[in-house]
Amino acid sequence: MKAIAVSQDDRSLDVIEKPRPEPAEGEALVKTLRVGVDGTDHEVIEGGHGGFPEDDDHLVLGHEAVGVVEDPNGTTLEVGDVVVPTVRRPPNGGNEYFERGEPDMAPSGMYHERGIVGEHGFMAEYFTSPAEFLVPIPAEMADLGFLVEPLSITEKAMELAEASRSSFTWDPETALILGNGSLGLLTLAMLRNDENYDRLYMLGRRDRPDPTVDLLEELGATYVDSRKTPVDMIQEVHEPMDFVFEATGYAKHAVQLVHALAPNGVGALLGVPGPWEFEFDGGAFHKEFVLHNKALVGSVNSHVRHFESAVDHLAEMDDWFFDDLITGVYGLGEFERAFEDGDTIIKTAVEFAQYEER
Amino acid sequence: MKAIAVSQDDRSLDVIEKPRPEPAEGEALVKTLRVGVDGTDHEVIEGGHGGFPEDDDHLVLGHEAVGVVEDPNGTTLEVGDVVVPTVRRPPNGGNEYFERGEPDMAPSGMYHERGIVGEHGFMAEYFTSPAEFLVPIPAEMADLGFLVEPLSITEKAMELAEASRSSFTWDPETALILGNGSLGLLTLAMLRNDENYDRLYMLGRRDRPDPTVDLLEELGATYVDSRKTPVDMIQEVHEPMDFVFEATGYAKHAVQLVHALAPNGVGALLGVPGPWEFEFDGGAFHKEFVLHNKALVGSVNSHVRHFESAVDHLAEMDDWFFDDLITGVYGLGEFERAFEDGDTIIKTAVEFAQYEER
Repeated sequence: MKAIAVSQDDRSLDVIEKPRPEPAEGEALVKTLRVGVDGTDHEVIEGGHGGFPEDDDHLVLGHEAVGVVEDPNGTTLEVGDVVVPTVRRPPNGGNEYFERGEPDMAPSGMYHERGIVGEHGFMAEYFTSPAEFLVPIPAEMADLGFLVEPLSITEKAMELAEASRSSFTWDPETALILGNGSLGLLTLAMLRNDENYDRLYMLGRRDRPDPTVDLLEELGATYVDSRKTPVDMIQEVHEPMDFVFEATGYAKHAVQLVHALAPNGVGALLGVPGPWEFEFDGGAFHKEFVLHNKALVGSVNSHVRHFESAVDHLAEMDDWFFDDLITGVYGLGEFERAFEDGDTIIKTAVEFAQYEER
Repeated sequence: MKAIAVSQDDRSLDVIEKPRPEPAEGEALVKTLRVGVDGTDHEVIEGGHGGFPEDDDHLVLGHEAVGVVEDPNGTTLEVGDVVVPTVRRPPNGGNEYFERGEPDMAPSGMYHERGIVGEHGFMAEYFTSPAEFLVPIPAEMADLGFLVEPLSITEKAMELAEASRSSFTWDPETALILGNGSLGLLTLAMLRNDENYDRLYMLGRRDRPDPTVDLLEELGATYVDSRKTPVDMIQEVHEPMDFVFEATGYAKHAVQLVHALAPNGVGALLGVPGPWEFEFDGGAFHKEFVLHNKALVGSVNSHVRHFESAVDHLAEMDDWFFDDLITGVYGLGEFERAFEDGDTIIKTAVEFAQYEER
């Protein structure tokens, strides 16, 4: 079968030929439909993040997949089930985090991530997976299934953020999303349908006309240009934010966002920046944090329950949103186009097969 | 009656004569027993924090009080009830935070704090208070009642911290308290009785012999000298900490503590530092926060339920701990001694009257 892999030799991304995998006991064989591309994939290609499987000279890329069960192999799944795989796998026979269904809480070294670190990903015509890591989704969502994994990242971050405010009465009304990439836009589309939030803001650094600015405005959000209104000025220029979702990976945002938060507000951090020494007013950060009961939560990865919530929330979103968000779906013959970057590109995927009803 | 007040003229602290207050409807009259002194009192005296009542040229100090009901004035309290007053009061006829019993979550401007900002405190022979802000405690705790308010601050911070970890399985074993002052030591005595925590650490910057170092070791904690082991090295030198409680007000700790936290750990910030610009590795802070699902919660003040928990937790502590912690209780004639600072002083109080059983 064909797969898209990064070579350890020269870090090139190529279509390679691999044997079709055989499902082991407890595993199903899945025929891949679509696999999304995100910033992590680019970091893996460039070598800034992730790692190759032991004893292998390449890594099959891809962690945002949707497929169809080809061979349930004695599991509870059925032939034709449309499924989305989770990303983390136990590295050596499992550990407590996997046993209790919370692999997203496992510390470094206690997990592999398919397509990112230690195990091959889903950008292949077929993949196998333990059935417990395959989340069934409605067949009508087959084309959009590659958005379940990214939205599950938001689900988990929101869950952590809301938990942090659960010991008192918290009625958030305003939310600010830092970053106008595909994850930010998916999050915005989700918050738009959340009756808690009346007013939504999204920060970016793009000139109009720009498709992400158009899209965020169509979703009812206010665009905040960070070149004119830095994060720590947003409260003055606009209003205090009960919830801030950071999806820029820009380290200054992690501390500046405290000054954008309303009293009792919470920020969720999702970016993974490199080292960066800079000066900031640590006293003001500390004081503001304490005197107004603010909170920050870091969040990485997600587990089955978050995938299930993401399916529910995707089902509530409008078709026009997906039409605007997904700027390209490319077959294997032109897979490179799914990895191109540019101001007119928002979300792309590689298509390995089209969904066919049985 | 006599009261201890800060003068607006010259910021001097003196015993003054004031009329004994008359309880309004819904208020009780309380005869003051003891009032504790803490860092906030010193900041109020120095003018770094707080503010005088409108139309008054002095502020009666004191927010850590215990007293006996002298006149219930038709409230549900009874003559002779030992009570501890909460600190925040509604500034102008109340607001939603007070209505739902969460004045500790009110933003700046929506509360007064007795003895700190906008309303006179409890360092007087008598005070009045709405009965809803008077928490009854067992009579045998009358002498220790002035410790209820400070411990309630810890109760609230712990509640916020635990809530932030409530969306997943969290079994903390290790805790680090930053700061070996009286609040840190009270917190340590509480965590020592918390079956979750097996190993406790306390950071300070004192040479032995030192009474706080002796006391923390008697409580079973390991002393961490910050001059030898800075906060961001503690994980390497000792072990990762599931919970970090910051009670130093030292702004670098607020960001360094992320590197002391175990994966999925949480830090509670309680200090209120002034502005301080410094350089730090914001990228490492951000990345570590995200990749290991860490959290930070800021916490200020407390409400009735936290006072009630504090009473329960104080009742579990050993008498020898209080003997060591409380280094001085002084009558009005020598009240200045309760405000002295020094390496042999841990916790002090001013005594206005001795408790007498009726």
